[in-house]
Amino acid sequence: MSSEPSIADHAMSELLKIRGSIDNIDAALIYMLAERFKCTKRVGVLKANNDLPAADPAREKRQIDRLRELARDAELDPVFAETFLNFIIKEVIQNHLALRD
Amino acid sequence: MSSEPSIADHAMSELLKIRGSIDNIDAALIYMLAERFKCTKRVGVLKANNDLPAADPAREKRQIDRLRELARDAELDPVFAETFLNFIIKEVIQNHLALRD
Repeated sequence: MSSEPSIADHAMSELLKIRGSIDNIDAALIYMLAERFKCTKRVGVLKANNDLPAADPAREKRQIDRLRELARDAELDPVFAETFLNFIIKEVIQNHLALRD
Repeated sequence: MSSEPSIADHAMSELLKIRGSIDNIDAALIYMLAERFKCTKRVGVLKANNDLPAADPAREKRQIDRLRELARDAELDPVFAETFLNFIIKEVIQNHLALRD
């Protein structure tokens, strides 16, 4: 029985280190998302009180173009960035509509 | 014609301010996501090189439980936090499988 760490041990140790970083990033993402929803909740109240439409396609188009550009700079797949923003916006619009129920 | 800003003007000015914050948060989210995918890409290579399975249901369960807890602390809907993590993990597993093609 060797005292040298095996390749499998080394891989597992690497895996655990990277998972620690992923967990830190996930916590940051959750707190940023929470702050984003606080902002969009304020937007939702403003829109409901001023009879502005819940969705704003022109604003969404500008957001998507900008995030695709930022994604390219960050070496993130721009298609994924767009899917991600659409996923968030869908949730936001549902929340905006719920404010009018 | 009044020189006082109307309620609609005030609402629009508020809306633009909040949108500025949303745009800053979105940039932060994109850069954090880019960093997260750099980490999961390293995990994918490790897994492919060591014949470890692409998905890890026990790890995913722990991640979901933790993020739901963080979401509660951040006043974010825990159901949304879970949907968000599942959305990311789905993309990650597709990327892991692509490394084996």
